[in-house]
Amino acid sequence: MASEPLVVGVDFGTLSGRAVVVRVRDGAELGTGVHDYRHGVLDRALPDGTPLPPEWALQVPQDYVDVLKHAVPAAIADAGVDPADVIGIGTDFTACTMVPVRADGTPLNELPEFAGEPHAYVKLWKHHAAQGQADRINALAEERGEAWLPRYGGLISSEWEFAKGLQLLEEAPGVYAAVDHWVEAADWIVWQLCGQYVRNACTAGYKGIYQDGYPSREFLAALNPDFAGFVADKLDHPLGRLGDRAGGLTEEAAAWTGLTPGIAVAVGNVDAHVTAPAAQAVGPGQMVAIMGTSTCHVMNGAELREVPGMCGVVPGGIVPGLWGYESGQSGVGDIFAWFVEHNVPPAYHERARERGISVHDLLTELAAEQAIGEHGLIALDWHSGNRSVLVDHELSGLVVGQTLATRAEDTYRALLEATAYGTRVIVDSYTDAGIPVTELVIAGGLVKNRLLMQIYADVLDMPLSVIGSEQGPALGSALHAAVAAKAHEDIHAAARAMGSVRRGVFRPIPENVAAYERLFVEYQELHDHFGRGANEVMHRLKALRRAVKDAEKGEK
Amino acid sequence: MASEPLVVGVDFGTLSGRAVVVRVRDGAELGTGVHDYRHGVLDRALPDGTPLPPEWALQVPQDYVDVLKHAVPAAIADAGVDPADVIGIGTDFTACTMVPVRADGTPLNELPEFAGEPHAYVKLWKHHAAQGQADRINALAEERGEAWLPRYGGLISSEWEFAKGLQLLEEAPGVYAAVDHWVEAADWIVWQLCGQYVRNACTAGYKGIYQDGYPSREFLAALNPDFAGFVADKLDHPLGRLGDRAGGLTEEAAAWTGLTPGIAVAVGNVDAHVTAPAAQAVGPGQMVAIMGTSTCHVMNGAELREVPGMCGVVPGGIVPGLWGYESGQSGVGDIFAWFVEHNVPPAYHERARERGISVHDLLTELAAEQAIGEHGLIALDWHSGNRSVLVDHELSGLVVGQTLATRAEDTYRALLEATAYGTRVIVDSYTDAGIPVTELVIAGGLVKNRLLMQIYADVLDMPLSVIGSEQGPALGSALHAAVAAKAHEDIHAAARAMGSVRRGVFRPIPENVAAYERLFVEYQELHDHFGRGANEVMHRLKALRRAVKDAEKGEK
Repeated sequence: MASEPLVVGVDFGTLSGRAVVVRVRDGAELGTGVHDYRHGVLDRALPDGTPLPPEWALQVPQDYVDVLKHAVPAAIADAGVDPADVIGIGTDFTACTMVPVRADGTPLNELPEFAGEPHAYVKLWKHHAAQGQADRINALAEERGEAWLPRYGGLISSEWEFAKGLQLLEEAPGVYAAVDHWVEAADWIVWQLCGQYVRNACTAGYKGIYQDGYPSREFLAALNPDFAGFVADKLDHPLGRLGDRAGGLTEEAAAWTGLTPGIAVAVGNVDAHVTAPAAQAVGPGQMVAIMGTSTCHVMNGAELREVPGMCGVVPGGIVPGLWGYESGQSGVGDIFAWFVEHNVPPAYHERARERGISVHDLLTELAAEQAIGEHGLIALDWHSGNRSVLVDHELSGLVVGQTLATRAEDTYRALLEATAYGTRVIVDSYTDAGIPVTELVIAGGLVKNRLLMQIYADVLDMPLSVIGSEQGPALGSALHAAVAAKAHEDIHAAARAMGSVRRGVFRPIPENVAAYERLFVEYQELHDHFGRGANEVMHRLKALRRAVKDAEKGEK
Repeated sequence: MASEPLVVGVDFGTLSGRAVVVRVRDGAELGTGVHDYRHGVLDRALPDGTPLPPEWALQVPQDYVDVLKHAVPAAIADAGVDPADVIGIGTDFTACTMVPVRADGTPLNELPEFAGEPHAYVKLWKHHAAQGQADRINALAEERGEAWLPRYGGLISSEWEFAKGLQLLEEAPGVYAAVDHWVEAADWIVWQLCGQYVRNACTAGYKGIYQDGYPSREFLAALNPDFAGFVADKLDHPLGRLGDRAGGLTEEAAAWTGLTPGIAVAVGNVDAHVTAPAAQAVGPGQMVAIMGTSTCHVMNGAELREVPGMCGVVPGGIVPGLWGYESGQSGVGDIFAWFVEHNVPPAYHERARERGISVHDLLTELAAEQAIGEHGLIALDWHSGNRSVLVDHELSGLVVGQTLATRAEDTYRALLEATAYGTRVIVDSYTDAGIPVTELVIAGGLVKNRLLMQIYADVLDMPLSVIGSEQGPALGSALHAAVAAKAHEDIHAAARAMGSVRRGVFRPIPENVAAYERLFVEYQELHDHFGRGANEVMHRLKALRRAVKDAEKGEK
């Protein structure tokens, strides 16, 4: 076989990194390598045993470098190709995941004086201990009528750069003072690859409140006088467009990966966002839902609209030249997993084991036998709060309608449906804002559940397209590598050549659509009642739970 | 041991009958015998295989006679006493449980021409197939402003004599025509014992709408012209006061039981109501909660008050001379049982097995470790609908507040608490109506769950008394036997001598009371929102479920 130009895409997830070797010409995925982070997620203690408070989630930057050292060579070996044929490497990362570093990129946790300091470690996207800071940012922004606030659906998340940065300042001013750059891990890994710190337009916009400029020094000073210089001193840095070349692969990174020094390294990117071109969904109105433990929805638009409750809209946030819109559901697959682990009686586990299938598969099979409405249930899918459109992490789950006749498959199906209604609320919010969703492309692990997909098609009354690849983010990163290496003219050309999608895989069934239309009205009424202030019981229950837990801690 | 006067009490439950031999002087329970009904509950088919529709629940009268033949001699043998010392026998029964009989008391199902006819069998209390008839009774009564309606909290149940009788007429007019008496099983069994049909004041009042007279012929005719003579032709019959002698034991019944012909047979009675004197709770304001799969609350009052949502108020309905009040919770222990059977993962079952305890005990133990509010949940205990104070069987369960951190013991505890809030609503309804509950006495199997009892004490902010006997209904029937035999002057004297209660067994803990006060407010808000018409989602979900099931049946 004659040698052909190849690229490598590396997807940095929550627990592991995955590298894939892809042919530039047609996107063929030739080989894959996966490497687990040695330290996983630090949510109870640092490696030295220093305990962590609740809601914390940290990581160790060196684990990311180990992915380059192990997963990339493994993918090359798996592909059986000559690494010299690889002309570029692209990466995507979880976000917002923040690394506090010195001027040369050294993470603070690698300095001996900070090794036992939690704030010196990477704050993973799901570090949720900065809610107090986020609340203050939101209150102040609303009070001051900050123009950027509606670009984020009206609320800045505790997961994002400013809340995490403010927490760092207020809880560990000494560490804060030592930070030269407050860097997205997406950019830090690119820095390790090419020796250049380039801040990518995607996370700067979605997580860093960059909208033709950052929040003002006055705003920051009003939050905390010592925070006034946060943007100027820690955050601001030249931006790189998605798909641009950040630099050439360093000798050191070439040695780690086995690739050729000097090949193109693409500007950093985010897992959900790179999936869009991998699914050929780079035109306005094409929404990609990446469905896993949670769901992220990304869509391009030709115009700027302020969609209530969206996560954000960023110029060039998904592809250069278009407005990138993002929404999200905080809990999807993790709700189903929680249900199976904690709510299903032994008989189902035994039956699944006997048949050699998963409990998920068994419940899905039983649920699929039901007519719509037969279980008599409606659930709210807020077990992890609600990201869109309510933007309220204090919300929680709800199930209405259980009787003594309710069985596990009934509630399981109600939860599947609840997440579909949740998606419908998001899709409707775009349509209502004047940027209709014209196509929905499903990516992510949940696409395998055919019942779930049919429910989504019926609830949304839309045919569902399905991404062609099973490793969409890594493929998407490879596409960006190809563009950075100038093997394709732009991401649109790369998407056409290397991306893939199957259209109309699941089609709405008219009688199901009608049945779900009635149930969606019920969902919407409960959604608004519990989510828009008519009954704040979920907030009060969470506050009480926290107060009780705090009191218990006090007693110990 | 010198021979002493004894009495026998027989409690006819849903699945079995229990006889107890009791000493008249002090209520000592000397021996017990239990006999299971051979046919149990017929809810799928008649003994000959004739299938039954959903919601049906029938029984076979001969099974009740078998209890007399087996359980009574077994109790005598267990006591090791001379049956000649037994001076009276009393009985209590489930209600409303109706036997269609000929003039001589022969149940219609024992006539060859009706053996395959479902309507010829006993309609057990939980036969729920007459809801349509009940709805019409209620609508008409409200429209006509019938004076008796408020005596039943504003709603007549589908379980009661009129709804079941109207269903019989409309679905099986031939059987209806053959009925000479529409008899409570409570009275039918007394008829078998003493050869006399005496209609007891308790079921006549609570289940038969007898309030100084029955609903009028005009009312009945407006329901259905052929129903006009229902009271006159099938129902009306001289009433017997509770504790009175219905007659003497027949030779035949003496042969069945081994007792002496001619001894006193007490007027029939109901399981919950006889428990009150067994717990020495015969004064105004003393409420007895019989807590099992469901809870029945009975209380005497010196005055007539119309308590919204009560099951009924009947003069002499519990003891002669006082107004007997009844309320109920449709689901209590059966909700806990449903939860354990259908919502608890394997690890808990294994752990309970290893430790040799029940899953209930394990969950209770884990739940007891929690502070109030720690689980972050509120549930509505309507899995079997709501009997009091909403009187709406179409309501269903609800759980608010689940997150990915919710474990089985959390939801279990929330369900325990929900039933306590449900009791609180009932107790408050009496206080609000001007007849305060001054003492709450707990009887029934759930008294063994100490966590549950403490929760009730805390939620109600009342010390809980506990009945002294573990077989309260059978003991209560024995008390009535003693009164019928004139061994005690009246039921008050019998209660003092033979009943027993432990006072202040569970006492409210002030800080728990305060914590639950806040949570009860949340319960009340959800209770009113979903139960009083603000959101009729539970009704719509049930209606949809029925429509879907009917459509499926239609297709088959």
